[in-house]
Amino acid sequence: MHPGFSKRVSDTMDSFIMGLVEVAARPGMVSFATGLPDNSLFDVDGLRRAVDDVLTDDSASALQYDCPNGYIPLRQRIAERCSRVLCVDVGYENIIMTNGSQECFDQLGKMFLDRGDGMIVENPGYLGAIQSFSAYGPDFDGVDVGPDGVDTEQLSVALEKGPKMFYSIPNYQNPSGFSYSAGVRREVADLIADSGCLMIEDDAYGELGYRGRVNKVMKSMVPDDIVLTGSFSKTISPGMRVGWMVIPDWMVGSASKCLESSSLQSNTFCQRVIDRFLAENDYDRFLDGLRRGYESKRDIFLDAMEDSLPDCMQWNRPDGGMFIWLRSPEGSDAMRIHEVALERGLVTMPGRPFHVRGGSNTLRLNFATPSEDQILDGMRILGSACRDVLGI
Amino acid sequence: MHPGFSKRVSDTMDSFIMGLVEVAARPGMVSFATGLPDNSLFDVDGLRRAVDDVLTDDSASALQYDCPNGYIPLRQRIAERCSRVLCVDVGYENIIMTNGSQECFDQLGKMFLDRGDGMIVENPGYLGAIQSFSAYGPDFDGVDVGPDGVDTEQLSVALEKGPKMFYSIPNYQNPSGFSYSAGVRREVADLIADSGCLMIEDDAYGELGYRGRVNKVMKSMVPDDIVLTGSFSKTISPGMRVGWMVIPDWMVGSASKCLESSSLQSNTFCQRVIDRFLAENDYDRFLDGLRRGYESKRDIFLDAMEDSLPDCMQWNRPDGGMFIWLRSPEGSDAMRIHEVALERGLVTMPGRPFHVRGGSNTLRLNFATPSEDQILDGMRILGSACRDVLGI
Repeated sequence: MHPGFSKRVSDTMDSFIMGLVEVAARPGMVSFATGLPDNSLFDVDGLRRAVDDVLTDDSASALQYDCPNGYIPLRQRIAERCSRVLCVDVGYENIIMTNGSQECFDQLGKMFLDRGDGMIVENPGYLGAIQSFSAYGPDFDGVDVGPDGVDTEQLSVALEKGPKMFYSIPNYQNPSGFSYSAGVRREVADLIADSGCLMIEDDAYGELGYRGRVNKVMKSMVPDDIVLTGSFSKTISPGMRVGWMVIPDWMVGSASKCLESSSLQSNTFCQRVIDRFLAENDYDRFLDGLRRGYESKRDIFLDAMEDSLPDCMQWNRPDGGMFIWLRSPEGSDAMRIHEVALERGLVTMPGRPFHVRGGSNTLRLNFATPSEDQILDGMRILGSACRDVLGI
Repeated sequence: MHPGFSKRVSDTMDSFIMGLVEVAARPGMVSFATGLPDNSLFDVDGLRRAVDDVLTDDSASALQYDCPNGYIPLRQRIAERCSRVLCVDVGYENIIMTNGSQECFDQLGKMFLDRGDGMIVENPGYLGAIQSFSAYGPDFDGVDVGPDGVDTEQLSVALEKGPKMFYSIPNYQNPSGFSYSAGVRREVADLIADSGCLMIEDDAYGELGYRGRVNKVMKSMVPDDIVLTGSFSKTISPGMRVGWMVIPDWMVGSASKCLESSSLQSNTFCQRVIDRFLAENDYDRFLDGLRRGYESKRDIFLDAMEDSLPDCMQWNRPDGGMFIWLRSPEGSDAMRIHEVALERGLVTMPGRPFHVRGGSNTLRLNFATPSEDQILDGMRILGSACRDVLGI
């Protein structure tokens, strides 16, 4: 006999994502499925030096408990970068370090959502974050996202219902690779300002724009109504779990209390290591190396798509991030393509689970993780799966 | 205009603890307040070697995403130690790695507690964990704890009300330093078995028994109704945030989903480092060093108490852990002693916040953090504060 689980457990959506990480790790499998960065772009030696220097200079203090909201010098460095690169003027007190940016979503859900509260998500939207919010039982309202960003008419209608939060990825969205245009950003900023709805701007891929930062972050346009979330998971190391949120002053007290009750503090040892890595290396130059690496992967991937996929398939050409959005003809079943490809040794990510409605004919493809050979092999499998499922 | 916070924010209790960490860090302050391990007992060089070897052998894989429930070799090592040392037979699938054991409490609260559900806590009990549960709005019921452990008559009455969980620290409790006797353990095991109430056995200090493991862990007595939580924070490094919970089979699916939605995974880089540290060092010998170190601190502390505190004060002699429980005469105000000592440069932790009822005449003293000189200086301050407040 054991106690019943809370409503939260049944409310929490299932996620395909982490299950596929395990499938993708099987020997011989090629994966376009998960959002793993390219191992070859990690700076292992730079991080080794950083650890060594931290342990030499900070010694045992580096291993001890630290400031609950995170290691202050790293928060100062992030605040300084916010001001200089993103035109977001904040102090380190506005930066709260978390266990990857996934913990930001959990904290924000915990802090704002009572069961039945309204919440806007993008359609398609990032499943991992939406799963995180789902635990707190909101009523989700989906607004469509296209190549120029969110549909602002739908957003305007959705905001009239008085939702508490709007979760979005304006740069190189996961899953679609779409970005908000400058015009859409202005319209969204006008809609959000003083709407009483908090916008969460997930900027996980913002540093991975192949032409640099093209558009303003939305937090710079409506600073008091937006939480900007960031992470070193896509740039330095996901396993170190160093993420953060940039929050307005009015939220600092409650966010600190929430974080303390959830985990006391996140990993300040790795925060010190990353702070040291940033001090000892030219981060912008390091980012340029990543951008060149991922851009070249994207080009190889797009060429392979042209060569291997049938003409009826459609896709975009993202300017950053790690994902391409593949569409089979309207009415066809992309889940079936996923299944057939899986049988033949390629893991893809079906697009349906990223949707509040529709999306049965979509697949998310990650071009960042596979090697060049894997891209070519995988794309041949994907092409054959498309042809067999679509009867071409 | 911004959205209202959830009920969870107002439900979450305030905690003195982390606030005092910042006060204690001020120059010139002596602290008996917080639960920080002794910096001088960390093995900085051993960890440096472990990091170096991990980065040499695992290279970039050490930085990548990993198994969501934690790095499997470390979980295997913990499972093996559970079997060998604790008589708890589990596989690695039953071990879920978390961001320190604080995250276990948040996850268990999230997984089981709907607003208004009953939950039993010790009185006094560990404030940090209770704060964590409080976010989910349970009705707390306190059962008194004394030198031999929890009051089993009170526990029996409390269990009749059908609570979902009972949170306890049977070994060297925070805040009191008390441990459950063998007899109390047997009685509690009988009460919990098939009661429908899940017991959380927080074993944060279990490895720090100065005479080794004297009593059985309760998880070995009622394996299916108890979650055992552990942590390397008190032994290897709190800043690395490596904790875990040992859960019964029936909980594995829900716990995995909950953890994924909260943070995807905890820090697998540090998990690899700790796994390597354990492989390269004799952990039992390392623990013996810690035990000798803390035992000697305890003795210095107790001697200083004898020398400096007035006769009307009472305290215990803990056989492990980091805390001593100080009581001023019934009816006197220990919070006032805390305040006067603070003005004079000593931070203590008032006992009142650890209580559901009573406790106004108690203080928690940590003997692990301060140096020998700080112990002598701090105790003179505490003695003078006691005499002045009590009018002796």
